Amino acid sequence: MMPGMLIRKAEAADARSILAVIMPAIREGATYALDPSLSEDAALAYWLGDDKETFVAQEGGEVVGTYFIRPNQGGGGGHVCNCGYMTSPTALGRGIASRMCQHSLDHARQRQYRAMQFNFVVSTNDRAIRLWLRMGFDVVGRLPGAFEHPTKGFVDALVMFQTL
Amino acid sequence: MMPGMLIRKAEAADARSILAVIMPAIREGATYALDPSLSEDAALAYWLGDDKETFVAQEGGEVVGTYFIRPNQGGGGGHVCNCGYMTSPTALGRGIASRMCQHSLDHARQRQYRAMQFNFVVSTNDRAIRLWLRMGFDVVGRLPGAFEHPTKGFVDALVMFQTL
Repeated sequence: MMPGMLIRKAEAADARSILAVIMPAIREGATYALDPSLSEDAALAYWLGDDKETFVAQEGGEVVGTYFIRPNQGGGGGHVCNCGYMTSPTALGRGIASRMCQHSLDHARQRQYRAMQFNFVVSTNDRAIRLWLRMGFDVVGRLPGAFEHPTKGFVDALVMFQTL
Repeated sequence: MMPGMLIRKAEAADARSILAVIMPAIREGATYALDPSLSEDAALAYWLGDDKETFVAQEGGEVVGTYFIRPNQGGGGGHVCNCGYMTSPTALGRGIASRMCQHSLDHARQRQYRAMQFNFVVSTNDRAIRLWLRMGFDVVGRLPGAFEHPTKGFVDALVMFQTL
């Protein structure tokens, strides 16, 4: 499966490439609870924030995906991590999200996290939900009407969780 | 019920009083997923952060409780708010949290929030859970072992939700 793919830490020089991956999904506003009008600077500041480790998935010389991992809570909640993943709109359906998720699970174990939590999986994002279920996550919560989808109106969001 | 209580917006001059309310619970580390070693400055920066509206509950001249309200997510999740409440350890059992919660629900409706969500209610915090159930919240999720309690070890955390 995609032997030519490399997943590595993001660097400052990746900023333009990361924006090319994350801005389409942010502007669409259908999968992440982020302001669709977020500026590029604010989007980068979020995706590369000090609380996060950020990675890029690269094929040949091209960045085709990116993800971050961070503690989901502080204090007594710090052993549970949270991740966000985005794949380039030009590279969908090639298993990149799956590879990034596997990488993040391995990385989380190395970092001695004990679990991974997704706080807000939009219930209409079928592809993502099927993938997370396949990757071992359970649905542990349902937030009724918690997301206003740009075309579908108010839809539920799911909380998904995996003990490591 | 406590006719002498006033709930009002927090002001800069309340900083010392707010610290007296919030630091004991932060240091104990049994109810909030915040670093127990948080400095007073960092605790205030959190509690009075730009993303929040913060209130104090006052009896006579004394601040006996404080709470914040903020959007729980950005973008399509911005119609759901999140609150945090703390009562002075010298004023427990007098219904102050209940009054603050009622105030926050009223305030949330005024602000046209459509729901209120608590992301991380520690499952051993029986008093809080009973209160939130009484105030109309439902348990919509359970995060297995997501909180390391200082004396009880790994315990679950609950996600609680109320449509407004």
